[in-house]
Amino acid sequence: MKITKPTVLLNWPVAKANLQRMTARADRHGLLLRPHFKTPQSNAIGQRCRAMGIRAITCSSVSMAGYFAAGGWEDITVAFPVNTREVESINELAKKSKLNLLAVNPVSLELLAAKLSSKVGIFIKIDVGTHRTGIAPDSADIEKCLAVLDASEMMDFKGFLAHAGQSYAARSVGEILGVHRSSTAILRKLKKKYQSRYPGLLLSTGDTPTCSMAENWEGIDEIRCGNFIFYDLMQVQIGCCQMEDIAVALACPVVAKNAERQEVLIYGGGIHLSKDRMDWDGETVFGLPVLLNRNGWEMPEVGCYVKSVSQEHGILKCTPSFFEKMEIGGLVGVLPVHSCMMVDLAHFYLTLEGKVLEKM
Amino acid sequence: MKITKPTVLLNWPVAKANLQRMTARADRHGLLLRPHFKTPQSNAIGQRCRAMGIRAITCSSVSMAGYFAAGGWEDITVAFPVNTREVESINELAKKSKLNLLAVNPVSLELLAAKLSSKVGIFIKIDVGTHRTGIAPDSADIEKCLAVLDASEMMDFKGFLAHAGQSYAARSVGEILGVHRSSTAILRKLKKKYQSRYPGLLLSTGDTPTCSMAENWEGIDEIRCGNFIFYDLMQVQIGCCQMEDIAVALACPVVAKNAERQEVLIYGGGIHLSKDRMDWDGETVFGLPVLLNRNGWEMPEVGCYVKSVSQEHGILKCTPSFFEKMEIGGLVGVLPVHSCMMVDLAHFYLTLEGKVLEKM
Repeated sequence: MKITKPTVLLNWPVAKANLQRMTARADRHGLLLRPHFKTPQSNAIGQRCRAMGIRAITCSSVSMAGYFAAGGWEDITVAFPVNTREVESINELAKKSKLNLLAVNPVSLELLAAKLSSKVGIFIKIDVGTHRTGIAPDSADIEKCLAVLDASEMMDFKGFLAHAGQSYAARSVGEILGVHRSSTAILRKLKKKYQSRYPGLLLSTGDTPTCSMAENWEGIDEIRCGNFIFYDLMQVQIGCCQMEDIAVALACPVVAKNAERQEVLIYGGGIHLSKDRMDWDGETVFGLPVLLNRNGWEMPEVGCYVKSVSQEHGILKCTPSFFEKMEIGGLVGVLPVHSCMMVDLAHFYLTLEGKVLEKM
Repeated sequence: MKITKPTVLLNWPVAKANLQRMTARADRHGLLLRPHFKTPQSNAIGQRCRAMGIRAITCSSVSMAGYFAAGGWEDITVAFPVNTREVESINELAKKSKLNLLAVNPVSLELLAAKLSSKVGIFIKIDVGTHRTGIAPDSADIEKCLAVLDASEMMDFKGFLAHAGQSYAARSVGEILGVHRSSTAILRKLKKKYQSRYPGLLLSTGDTPTCSMAENWEGIDEIRCGNFIFYDLMQVQIGCCQMEDIAVALACPVVAKNAERQEVLIYGGGIHLSKDRMDWDGETVFGLPVLLNRNGWEMPEVGCYVKSVSQEHGILKCTPSFFEKMEIGGLVGVLPVHSCMMVDLAHFYLTLEGKVLEKM
């Protein structure tokens, strides 16, 4: 396939190695790996994961769960606080699959209880410090939620779930482990408090940074990380992967060169890379350009970065040597700041062997 | 249609008024309005524009031009520097439609000349101060491009084209007019220099800020603004529309409330709103929440804003009165920072009358 437009390249051997490493970590710690498929969003990649032994997945929306259920997945957690306006789709889905939903307040659970026609599992989401969503661990809302669950025939209480998203602000292994210690301690305390009343209750957690780095998983039953499948520059910066572990890059046509500014215009902008940005080596960057080769891509060159993106335009700031290598009519790769967002915008993947893999 | 997921609401009467105002401005100044359809990306809205007399359009990619050509548009400018890797699609398209492309260097034109099988028009894109792309007005590349065009049977030189994107950094009418004066002066100078050699050469410009505010269009033939159809918070901040002129909002399910933080969790995140952000009243915001009503939406309340977005989550920071009005299981609207990016992420529009309008 000739690449004519911005195209997500997938280095499957790298992604596979990332998956194998995380699977081995999960096995070592007795954890169920329930990867978050909001990252790959692809049944084609899902099949490859299944071949590696993965049986349970996480999704970020009911629509996504529907896509993967159609692809044969039968054990799905929608890790987004339940949106009761979607109860009809939830009922449809729960008829066919083992479906777990998230509660963050008793109000949604009561609305749900009134309209559910199929059984679902419910995790109570705990705010372990991200302060984005979830119930505070000492809030009376936990008991209120449990009261609704106890009274319902359609909802099974599964346990407590958390996303320690503050790990994304970490910039060292020490900081990641600090987040992990405090967030898992909160969950363990809840397990201790409730496990006699709810034997078998589960603890589920799993942002990519802590899952990549932490070794103490006492009391935790399941991890739900997703980004680790592809990783990205953000994860390199946090310190939980190497540049070589990034499994996706955007191949972009080179459209123009400006010698005076040592800048290159690529076809590849905010609707391809997203507008996620980060500080990198003193600059605000929207990605790092890489030379493409037969085996994928080379590592980025110091001093080169995606300086700006508009709707379809991307501007690369280049070193003289990188600038020289850019050819109008050729291609250049871009490593993403945030792979989940870049992949969300793509219509398919192209593997390095030239295979097109479908996407949601 | 019951809204269950993040959904772009279109207030067509407002969009229509925006179109009528711009059409009247174009008429008054003797300009061809060739609206940029990268904003609406919809043949359904395109038909409504056609009913208002619009016959020529701008697109930001060859794929988009293909979509609109299939919708019956026969005069299309792709306002992105030509990507020669797409020459096959260009040939297909140019067979059916009057197609104009942009040149920013002689190299692309030579590559194109070798492979074109259908006639296209070529605008030379001039950098009038944005420094994103385009040829500097005093560069020898202009003559080099003209030499390639003169020698080609397949390429017609149409004139000079610019996008004064630096107007987006303006924060007052005075600043917008300053950008307009300097950028149009550059184009006029080129017209003066080349019009005896190329009688009938056109000058095309058209970012939304200058098109909305400027009154001196001497020498300019065509405007290509697009964002004005919907406007957004960025345009309100620049000073070229009122809050009431914004024609799109994202309707989002309300999922949870946190009384302590006076925050509301909505289903509506970076994959719906994009991650475009702006400074607004002292805060970094990803949009402004608005109450929905039968006639669309109310104006935003001071002190309320979208504080953060992740993949599917949005967090609203609320005043006590706004917080009280938020109901779990209900809906809230979000006015976008950048309507083009938000609309790009949508699958369809829902008009206030409940009609679903297709999108690319």
